[in-house]
Amino acid sequence: MATGTTKRNIDVCFTPALIEYYDIANKNVVLIDILRATSTICTAFDLGVREIIPVASETEALAYKNKGFIVAGERDGKVLSFADFGNSPFNFMDSDIKGKSIAYCTTNGTKAIFSAKQALHLVVGSYLNFSAVIKFLEADDHDVLMLCSGWKNKFDIEDTLFAGAVCDKLLAGGNFITGGDAAIVSVDLWNLAKNDLLAYIDKSDHRKRLKNLGLDDVIEYCHTFDKTEKLPILKGNSIIDSYEVL
Amino acid sequence: MATGTTKRNIDVCFTPALIEYYDIANKNVVLIDILRATSTICTAFDLGVREIIPVASETEALAYKNKGFIVAGERDGKVLSFADFGNSPFNFMDSDIKGKSIAYCTTNGTKAIFSAKQALHLVVGSYLNFSAVIKFLEADDHDVLMLCSGWKNKFDIEDTLFAGAVCDKLLAGGNFITGGDAAIVSVDLWNLAKNDLLAYIDKSDHRKRLKNLGLDDVIEYCHTFDKTEKLPILKGNSIIDSYEVL
Repeated sequence: MATGTTKRNIDVCFTPALIEYYDIANKNVVLIDILRATSTICTAFDLGVREIIPVASETEALAYKNKGFIVAGERDGKVLSFADFGNSPFNFMDSDIKGKSIAYCTTNGTKAIFSAKQALHLVVGSYLNFSAVIKFLEADDHDVLMLCSGWKNKFDIEDTLFAGAVCDKLLAGGNFITGGDAAIVSVDLWNLAKNDLLAYIDKSDHRKRLKNLGLDDVIEYCHTFDKTEKLPILKGNSIIDSYEVL
Repeated sequence: MATGTTKRNIDVCFTPALIEYYDIANKNVVLIDILRATSTICTAFDLGVREIIPVASETEALAYKNKGFIVAGERDGKVLSFADFGNSPFNFMDSDIKGKSIAYCTTNGTKAIFSAKQALHLVVGSYLNFSAVIKFLEADDHDVLMLCSGWKNKFDIEDTLFAGAVCDKLLAGGNFITGGDAAIVSVDLWNLAKNDLLAYIDKSDHRKRLKNLGLDDVIEYCHTFDKTEKLPILKGNSIIDSYEVL
């Protein structure tokens, strides 16, 4: 637990393509894919899912399907043809996923998870479990890296704003410092956007992409604070509920 | 020359480590390393240098030195032991470099140049030649990518602000559009910082790094608009004056 005597560092990595330039072996990493993977994963745990197995490819997802697993997945925002669910948090809401294992394939989120497997702890963050993320990071003694999933290895606005929200909260709390330009800028963007978050998100590229696919119904929900106290965490090759690990 | 009928696209790449995710074959790329490579290169051309040969390693710089070339170079902000000049624009000001060739090695700038050799045109941008950059991009018919050198493959504030300044100007001009989240955010950061640019730069990580090395005397100069009308441009393996190419 935190002693409060040593300031910990927090920084932000804008895309998984840059993760190799950060030393994460002894850090807590928060995985962020607000639209929509990490919001969906938090929702699934709130609904009682037992385990989410991130898979890297459509082929691997199909192999899980053939083994009898429930499969959720998308490529470029569109549901995989053989999947039971897409990548929308709403997909799970009318289904009984309690206690079940789901194999999960997404364009950016899965790649980001695998890029950060060396982290001390890799936790899943979204606005939906914002306070659970803060509580965990404050209570632990280690440095933090916020890992944005981005879009196909490029920077994205919506993940950066969430990274900024977490940095802003932790820096204000007094136990964290940052020297990272990405963290500094994320906080400034968060403060620029926070009073009308959805208007700011409306400028983003992925917002337009989801709108064009008719998948933008989730945007307001995915920017709602504290719908759940769950903190999904990676253990081995699965994401499970943090109470089983921490 | 621009017809004015078709909007061109402008986007921003935050570090050379992400350049592979952008298609630059048919784009004009503006190389940015405000502190200090591109500011230094613009200053050198203003002082009449004939050619700057970017080199990737200390070893290669030494080979040029042994062949009788003037060598300018630094690693991690510090002057190479065998170099004639460091990486400060002030280094050239008391010397006669008119008509000469300089081999030039920097931590981030050289790497960025080589990462974007496939560009239609690779031009060197800084506040010092801001209007020359704008004039070239407006007059040409192609899309634009602003390429920030960053710091060791990570995002940096000072290059991003310059990218934002150029995007802001071009978007306001009406001949350009953007759908890129990095460009959108760069413009917002520029507008946040522009009224007190040096105060904002003061927050940056590299500002602190230069201060610690006693090399921060150049910061105000490197954020001064339009000291020169020169537009350095890559041709083959050298940077030369654009009037020789365009």
